[in-house]
Amino acid sequence: MNSDSNGHPSDIVADSANNIPRLPTGIPGVDALTFGGVPRSRPTLVCGTSASGKTVFSVQFLACGIQHYDEPGVFVAFEETPQDIRENMAGFGWKIPQWEQDGTWKFVDAGLLPDEEEHLVNGDFNLEGLRTRIRHAVESSGAKRVALDSLAAIFTRFPNPGVVRRELFRMTSVLKELGVTSLLTTELLQGDETTTRFEVEEYVADAVIVLRNRPSVARRRRTIEVLKLRGGQHKTGEHAFSITANGVHAIPVGSMA
Amino acid sequence: MNSDSNGHPSDIVADSANNIPRLPTGIPGVDALTFGGVPRSRPTLVCGTSASGKTVFSVQFLACGIQHYDEPGVFVAFEETPQDIRENMAGFGWKIPQWEQDGTWKFVDAGLLPDEEEHLVNGDFNLEGLRTRIRHAVESSGAKRVALDSLAAIFTRFPNPGVVRRELFRMTSVLKELGVTSLLTTELLQGDETTTRFEVEEYVADAVIVLRNRPSVARRRRTIEVLKLRGGQHKTGEHAFSITANGVHAIPVGSMA
Amino acid sequence: MNSDSNGHPSDIVADSANNIPRLPTGIPGVDALTFGGVPRSRPTLVCGTSASGKTVFSVQFLACGIQHYDEPGVFVAFEETPQDIRENMAGFGWKIPQWEQDGTWKFVDAGLLPDEEEHLVNGDFNLEGLRTRIRHAVESSGAKRVALDSLAAIFTRFPNPGVVRRELFRMTSVLKELGVTSLLTTELLQGDETTTRFEVEEYVADAVIVLRNRPSVARRRRTIEVLKLRGGQHKTGEHAFSITANGVHAIPVGSMA
Amino acid sequence: MNSDSNGHPSDIVADSANNIPRLPTGIPGVDALTFGGVPRSRPTLVCGTSASGKTVFSVQFLACGIQHYDEPGVFVAFEETPQDIRENMAGFGWKIPQWEQDGTWKFVDAGLLPDEEEHLVNGDFNLEGLRTRIRHAVESSGAKRVALDSLAAIFTRFPNPGVVRRELFRMTSVLKELGVTSLLTTELLQGDETTTRFEVEEYVADAVIVLRNRPSVARRRRTIEVLKLRGGQHKTGEHAFSITANGVHAIPVGSMA
Amino acid sequence: MNSDSNGHPSDIVADSANNIPRLPTGIPGVDALTFGGVPRSRPTLVCGTSASGKTVFSVQFLACGIQHYDEPGVFVAFEETPQDIRENMAGFGWKIPQWEQDGTWKFVDAGLLPDEEEHLVNGDFNLEGLRTRIRHAVESSGAKRVALDSLAAIFTRFPNPGVVRRELFRMTSVLKELGVTSLLTTELLQGDETTTRFEVEEYVADAVIVLRNRPSVARRRRTIEVLKLRGGQHKTGEHAFSITANGVHAIPVGSMA
Amino acid sequence: MNSDSNGHPSDIVADSANNIPRLPTGIPGVDALTFGGVPRSRPTLVCGTSASGKTVFSVQFLACGIQHYDEPGVFVAFEETPQDIRENMAGFGWKIPQWEQDGTWKFVDAGLLPDEEEHLVNGDFNLEGLRTRIRHAVESSGAKRVALDSLAAIFTRFPNPGVVRRELFRMTSVLKELGVTSLLTTELLQGDETTTRFEVEEYVADAVIVLRNRPSVARRRRTIEVLKLRGGQHKTGEHAFSITANGVHAIPVGSMA
Ligand SMILES: Nc1ncnc2c1ncn2[C@@H]1O[C@H](COP(=O)(O)OP(=O)(O)O)[C@@H](O)[C@H]1O
Ligand SMILES: Nc1ncnc2c1ncn2[C@@H]1O[C@H](COP(=O)(O)OP(=O)(O)O)[C@@H](O)[C@H]1O
Ligand SMILES: Nc1ncnc2c1ncn2[C@@H]1O[C@H](COP(=O)(O)OP(=O)(O)O)[C@@H](O)[C@H]1O
Ligand SMILES: Nc1ncnc2c1ncn2[C@@H]1O[C@H](COP(=O)(O)OP(=O)(O)O)[C@@H](O)[C@H]1O
Ligand SMILES: Nc1ncnc2c1ncn2[C@@H]1O[C@H](COP(=O)(O)OP(=O)(O)O)[C@@H](O)[C@H]1O
Ligand SMILES: Nc1ncnc2c1ncn2[C@@H]1O[C@H](COP(=O)(O)OP(=O)(O)O)[C@@H](O)[C@H]1O
Ligand SMILES: [Mg+2]
Ligand SMILES: [Mg+2]
Ligand SMILES: [Mg+2]
Ligand SMILES: [Mg+2]
Ligand SMILES: [Mg+2]
Ligand SMILES: [Mg+2]
Repeated sequence: MNSDSNGHPSDIVADSANNIPRLPTGIPGVDALTFGGVPRSRPTLVCGTSASGKTVFSVQFLACGIQHYDEPGVFVAFEETPQDIRENMAGFGWKIPQWEQDGTWKFVDAGLLPDEEEHLVNGDFNLEGLRTRIRHAVESSGAKRVALDSLAAIFTRFPNPGVVRRELFRMTSVLKELGVTSLLTTELLQGDETTTRFEVEEYVADAVIVLRNRPSVARRRRTIEVLKLRGGQHKTGEHAFSITANGVHAIPVGSMA
Repeated sequence: MNSDSNGHPSDIVADSANNIPRLPTGIPGVDALTFGGVPRSRPTLVCGTSASGKTVFSVQFLACGIQHYDEPGVFVAFEETPQDIRENMAGFGWKIPQWEQDGTWKFVDAGLLPDEEEHLVNGDFNLEGLRTRIRHAVESSGAKRVALDSLAAIFTRFPNPGVVRRELFRMTSVLKELGVTSLLTTELLQGDETTTRFEVEEYVADAVIVLRNRPSVARRRRTIEVLKLRGGQHKTGEHAFSITANGVHAIPVGSMA
Repeated sequence: MNSDSNGHPSDIVADSANNIPRLPTGIPGVDALTFGGVPRSRPTLVCGTSASGKTVFSVQFLACGIQHYDEPGVFVAFEETPQDIRENMAGFGWKIPQWEQDGTWKFVDAGLLPDEEEHLVNGDFNLEGLRTRIRHAVESSGAKRVALDSLAAIFTRFPNPGVVRRELFRMTSVLKELGVTSLLTTELLQGDETTTRFEVEEYVADAVIVLRNRPSVARRRRTIEVLKLRGGQHKTGEHAFSITANGVHAIPVGSMA
Repeated sequence: MNSDSNGHPSDIVADSANNIPRLPTGIPGVDALTFGGVPRSRPTLVCGTSASGKTVFSVQFLACGIQHYDEPGVFVAFEETPQDIRENMAGFGWKIPQWEQDGTWKFVDAGLLPDEEEHLVNGDFNLEGLRTRIRHAVESSGAKRVALDSLAAIFTRFPNPGVVRRELFRMTSVLKELGVTSLLTTELLQGDETTTRFEVEEYVADAVIVLRNRPSVARRRRTIEVLKLRGGQHKTGEHAFSITANGVHAIPVGSMA
Repeated sequence: MNSDSNGHPSDIVADSANNIPRLPTGIPGVDALTFGGVPRSRPTLVCGTSASGKTVFSVQFLACGIQHYDEPGVFVAFEETPQDIRENMAGFGWKIPQWEQDGTWKFVDAGLLPDEEEHLVNGDFNLEGLRTRIRHAVESSGAKRVALDSLAAIFTRFPNPGVVRRELFRMTSVLKELGVTSLLTTELLQGDETTTRFEVEEYVADAVIVLRNRPSVARRRRTIEVLKLRGGQHKTGEHAFSITANGVHAIPVGSMA
Repeated sequence: MNSDSNGHPSDIVADSANNIPRLPTGIPGVDALTFGGVPRSRPTLVCGTSASGKTVFSVQFLACGIQHYDEPGVFVAFEETPQDIRENMAGFGWKIPQWEQDGTWKFVDAGLLPDEEEHLVNGDFNLEGLRTRIRHAVESSGAKRVALDSLAAIFTRFPNPGVVRRELFRMTSVLKELGVTSLLTTELLQGDETTTRFEVEEYVADAVIVLRNRPSVARRRRTIEVLKLRGGQHKTGEHAFSITANGVHAIPVGSMA
C-alpha cells in the first residue's frame, strides 16, 4: 500500500512517473481508464444526459471509498432527497443507512426545503450556508470523498449565471482547501456532446468524465469517456459502460492520449 | 397476491431483490418493460409529441387500477374537458361515467373556466387551489392512482417558468405525501428526442417513459421507451406500441439496462 | 341515411362501435382516411405550408355540406377577401355567389378593414366582435359547418400570444356551444413537420390534418395525413392528395392507427 | 386577340375555363409555366436569393408590356438608383431612357435620398408619400404594369415589422384599386427555401414565383418555380431558367398542380 | 488601348456589347472570370471567411493598378495597421513604402487610435471624418482605385446596425461621386455560404466575389466565385484560387451566367 | 545561428525570402508546419475545444524558449492557478519551479482572487492592473515569449463584450510594444470549426493555430492546423498532433497555402 504526499492510506494504481497524484475510485474499470484514478484532492466533473447514470456513479464513488479504502464520504443531494437516494440505491447492496449510523456517510440535503421555495423565486438562496454545512460535514466525519449531485439543479434554480459561477468557484475553493477529492455531476447540452449545459462547470474541474446513453439498434448502449485529465495520461475515446445489480462498471479497451 | 410495505393489495410482478417497490400498471406490456411497473408512491413522467397517445395511456392507467386492482383513481384534466375525456374514451370500452357514479373515478377539471381566463392572462392562476382539489379528490375516493394530463398546458398558460417550477415541486410533494402513484404527461421538445419541452418536468419524476409516433414508409410507427427508472432495472431502447380498440399496449423485446 | 345523437340528417360512413360521432366531409378520400369524417360538433385543425391547399380544402368542406348534405356553412375569411374567395373558387365550379343568395353560404369578413388598421397596430383588435358576427351568421343561416381560414393571419397581426391563445379558446368554446363542426386552418412551422406555427392552435382542436407540398424530382408532390383524431380510429401516414379542376381529393391507401 | 373583363387589349394565352383572368407577362416560358400569365390586376411576388435575377425579371416584365402589349409600366426602385437600372439593363437591349421620353416607362425612386437618411434612422420614413407618387405615376402614364424591386430593402430600413406589414397592406390595396398587375420582389430566407425573409410578404400576394441560383457541380444552375397561384392552375416544381444577353427565359417541362 | 467614357487610359478586356463598363483588375484570372473586370466606378464586394485571402486580394487590386495601369490607389485599413500591411505584403514583392514615396499609394488608417477607444465604446466614432480623409487621399493622389479592408471590423465596433447601414450608404455614395472603382471586403456568415455577416453590405455593392477556404482531404482548397455582377455577364460557380509568393490568382474554367 | 532585425539570438529556420520574420517555437513539428515559426514580436492565437491541449501547448512554448533558445518567458494564468500549472506540467519534465528560481519563468496570476470576486460580479475587474503586471514581469525578466491562457476565461467573466474587445486591443498593443512574441489561447465555438468563441479574438492575432480533438472509431484523434498566418507561407489542412510524456508534437505532411 502506497502513501501519497497528503498521507492518505490508499494504494495508488499505475501512478506513473509523469502523472499528478491520483485517488483510485474503486469503480471497476474507471481506474484503468484514468491510469490510476481521478486527480487526488481536486474536483472531477461527471457529465451526462438524464438517466446516463450520474447519480449511481457518484453514490458508488463514496460507497467504494467506505468499503475498500476506509475513506468516509459526504453526499450533497441537490436533486433527489436523501431518503430517495437511500431507497433507490438499496438495490445495489449499498447500506447507506448503516453507514450513516457508523458515521462514514453523511448527507447534506441541498434540495428545496418548503420554506426556502419563496427565497428561490426571489433569487436569494444562500450557497454560503451550504458551503458551511459541507465544510462541517467533512470535518466532523473526516471525509476524504465528496459527491455533489447535480450542479444542473442549481443552475435551473438560479436565474443569474454570473452569481452561480462565482458561487461554484467558491465551492470548489472550499473543497480544495479541505483537501477532499470531489466529484461534481452536471448535464450535457443536448445535441452537443462535449459542452456542459451551463458552460462554466468545466472551468472548475481538473478532470472531465462523460457518460452517454446512446440510442442503438434494439436498445440503448451506455459509454464512458475520460474527456480531460489535467496533468496526467488517460485512455481516450468511448468505452463500454453498464449499470447492473452491483452498480456501474466500465470496460476499457485500447489506446491512450 | 403480494402486499408491499405500504400494504397495497396489488400483486407485484417481477419485483426482484434489487429494485424499489413497484406498482403494476396493468397496461399490457408496460409491466414487463419496467420489470414490475412504475415506482410505487412516486411520480412517473410520460412524454411524447402531440398524438403519441399520452392521454389514452394515462386514462388506461386509471382504468386498469379500477378494473384489475380495485384501486380508485383521480384524473386531473388540463387540456381536454372531463366531458371530452368521457366521450373520447368511451370507444375503448371504459365506462368512466359509471365509475364516477361508483365513486372509483374522480375528475379534477383543471382547464380554463370562463371566469378564470382573465386571471390567466394576468398570471395569477392559483395552483394552490388545484392542489387542494386534488388532495380532496384523493382523500374522498381513497385513490391510489392519479393522472395529470398534461403539464404542457400549464407551461403554455404561465409565462413565468420559475413560478411553474416551484408549483410543480409543490404538486409532486403533495402527491408523494398522499402516498399515491402518479403519472404526469408532458410534451417532448420537437427535434430533440430526449428533452422535455419545459426542461424541468424531469426533475420531479423518478421514472420517464417516452412515447413516439415516428414517420415510417407508408404509415406512422408507434414506439415506447423507458428512458429512466431511478432505483430499478428496466428494459432499454424503443419497443413497439399500438393504440387499438382495447386501448394501448406495448410489445417488449430484448435486453436490459 | 343515419341520424346521429344530435339528429343531423347526414349519413355516417364507417362509424364503428368504438368511435366518437363523425361528420362526413364529403371531400373525396377524406372520409375514408378518417373512418367516417371529422369529429362532429368539434373543431378540426388543417395545417400546411403556403400553397398546400388549405383554402381550397376549407371552401370545399362548406361546398360539400351545401351540395351533398343540405348543410349551410359559414366562411370566416382572415386572409383573402370574400371577393377574392368568390373569384378564386369559381374555377372549381363552386357557385358561392348563388349560395349566398340562397342563404346557404355566409361570409364573415375578418380581414383588415381600412379603418381597423390603426387599431391593429395598437393591438386592440376586437375578437369579441368577431365572435358575435360568427354566432349571428351561424344562427341566422342554420349553419352546420364553419371554416376559419387562416388562424396564422391572426397571430401575425397580434403581438401578444397570451391574448391570442385566450381569444382562440373563447372562439372554439363558442363554436362548440353552437354545435357546429368547424375547420380551422393554420400554417406549419417551416422545417418542423409536425408543429404548428404558433404552438397553441393544436390545444383547441380534437383532430389534426396535415397538408404537405413536398419537392419531388420534377415537380411538387402533395400529401395529406391525419395526424391526430381524439376518440377515434383513422388511417396513419401520408397519402396522395391533389388539386384538380374539381377541387381537392385524397387517395388513401394502407394501414391504421 | 382576346379582351378580358377590364378591356385590356392583351391576348390571353391558355385562359382555360377554370382559371381567374391572367395577364401574359411576355417573358419567354413564364406564361407557359403559369398557364397564361400572372393574375391580372393583382399582385404577384417574385422571390429569390441575392443575384437570382429578380431585378432583371421585374425590368423585363415592364419591357415586355411596352414592347409586345402596348402597356406602359412604372418601376419603383428601392435598391438600385434609376440611373443604375438604366445602365445595368442597357446590355439587354432595353432602351429605358427612350421609353421614359415616350412616356411608356416611369421611374419612382424609392431609394435613400440624402435628406431622408436621418428620417430613416428615426423610423419616420413616409410610405404614404411613396404611395401617392406611385398612384400619380400610374395615372399620368396609364400604366397597366407596376414593378416594385425590392421589398427586402424596406424591411431592412424599418425596425418595426408591424408598421411595415400595415404599410404593405396599404400599398397592395392601392395597387389593386388602380387595377394594375403588379410584381413585387423580395428575398428568400437563407437555408429555408419556401419562406420569404420577412414572413409577411406572401400574405399580400396572390401568386408566388421563386427564383433559385443553386450551386451545381462546376457552375450555378438557375431555376424558376411557380409556388402558388391562387384561383388557377400552373405547372409545379423547378424548371430551368437562364439570364442571357436577351434577358431571362424559362424552359418549362412536365406536369401540373 | 481603349478609353472608356470616363477617359481612363486602361485597356478594357472583353468588354462585350451587352455589358456595363469594366475596370480590369489585373489580378491573374479574375478579369477572365468577370469577362473584363469589376464594374468601373462602382463598388465591388469581396467576401470570405477569416484567412480566405481578402487582404491579399485587395492589396493586389491596388498593386496591379499601380504596376500595370498607372492608376494610383488608396488603401483604407480597418483591421491591420498600415505598418502591418507593409510588412505582411513585402513578401509578395509589393514595394508599398516606395509607392507611398512615389505618391501612387496612400494609406488611410481607420484602425483604433489610442484616444479613439473610449469613443468607440460610447458609440460616437465619426465616419464622417473617415469619409473626409478618404476623399482627401483620393483627390490628392488622383487615385482610381480604393480598397476598404474590412467592413466587418466596423460592424463589430459599432453596436447599432442602423447607424452602420446609413454610414455605409454614405460611404459608397462618396466613392461613386469620386468616380473611383472600389473594393470592399467583408466576412461571410459561418455556415451560410452566400450571406454576408451583417446582411447589409451587399445592398451597397454592384458585384459580389466570394473567396472560400474549404477543408479538403489533406489540405485546404481555395476557391473564388463571382456571385453577382449587376449589368453584366460573368462565369458562374467556384473556380480554383491560390495564394503564392506572387500574390493571388484564379484559374477559371467552364460556363457562364 | 541567425540574428533577426530585433537582434534576438534565435536561429531562424526556413525564413524564406517572401516571409515576415519568424520565431521558431521549438515545439516539434510546429516550425515545419509554419515554415519557420510564429510571427516574431506579434500575437498568435491558439484555439481549440476543452482538452485539446491548449495549456500544454502554451506552457511548452515557454519551456522551449528557456531550454533551447535562452529566452525567458512569462505565463499569464487566467484559468488554472500557477500552483496547478506547476503540478500539472511536472509530469512532462518541465521544472517550472526551478526556472522561477533562475528568473527565466515568471507567472502572472490572472485568476480569481478571493477579494476580487465581488468586483467581477459588478463588472469592474481592472485589466489595466493586469497589463501593468505583465509589463513589469516582461521587463524585469527580459522575457521574449509570453503566453496568455486562456482568453475564454476573461470573456465568461465579463458580461460586456465591447469592454472586453477594447481591453484585448489594449493588451495586444502592449505586447507588440514590448516586442515580445506572444501566444494567446481561446476556445472554439462548438459546432463551428473555424470561428472562435467570442468572435473578436482573431482580429487581434496575426496567426491562428487550431487544435482539434476529434472523435474517431475507438479513440480521439488529435490534429493541428495553421489556419492563418498573415504575411507568410505555411502548410495547410489538419496534421496529426499528440500529447505524450514529453509534451506535444505535430507530424506535418503534405502541401502548402
Ligand atoms: N437497481 C438497478 N439495477 C439496474 N439498473 C438500475 C438500477 N437502478 C437504476 N438503474 C439504471 O440507472 C438509471 C438511472 O441512473 P441515474 O444515476 O439516476 O441517472 P442520472 O443521475 O444520470 O439521471 C436508470 O434509468 C436505470 O436504467
Ligand atoms: N378509439 C380509438 N381507436 C383507435 N385509436 C384511437 C382511438 N382513439 C384515439 N386513437 C388514436 O390515439 C391518438 C390520440 O391519442 P392521445 O392519447 O389523445 O394523444 P396525445 O394525448 O399524446 O396527444 C389518435 O390520434 C388516434 O390515432
Ligand atoms: N382552379 C385551380 N385548378 C387547379 N389548381 C388550383 C386551382 N386553383 C388553385 N389551385 C392550386 O391550389 C394552390 C393554392 O391553394 P390554396 O388553398 O390557396 O393554398 P393555401 O391556402 O394552403 O395557401 C395553388 O397554388 C394552385 O396550385
Ligand atoms: N447583361 C447581362 N448578361 C448576362 N447576365 C447578366 C447580365 N446582367 C446581369 N446578369 C446576371 O444577372 C445577375 C443579377 O441579376 P439581378 O436581377 O440583379 O439579381 P437580383 O436582383 O436577384 O439580386 C448577375 O449576377 C448576372 O449573373
Ligand atoms: N507570403 C505569402 N506566401 C504565401 N501565402 C501567404 C503569404 N502571405 C499570406 N499568405 C496566405 O494568405 C493567408 C492570409 O490571407 P489574408 O488576405 O490575410 O486573409 P483574410 O484577409 O481573408 O483574413 C495566410 O493565412 C496565408 O495562408
Ligand atoms: N502528463 C501527461 N501525459 C500525457 N497526456 C497528458 C498529460 N497531461 C495532460 N495530458 C493530456 O492533455 C489533456 C489536457 O490538455 P490541456 O492543455 O489542459 O487542454 P486545454 O487547455 O485545451 O483544455 C489531458 O486531457 C490529457 O489528455
Ligand atoms: Mg441523477
Ligand atoms: Mg392528450
Ligand atoms: Mg390560403
Ligand atoms: Mg436586385
Ligand atoms: Mg484580412
Ligand atoms: Mg487549458
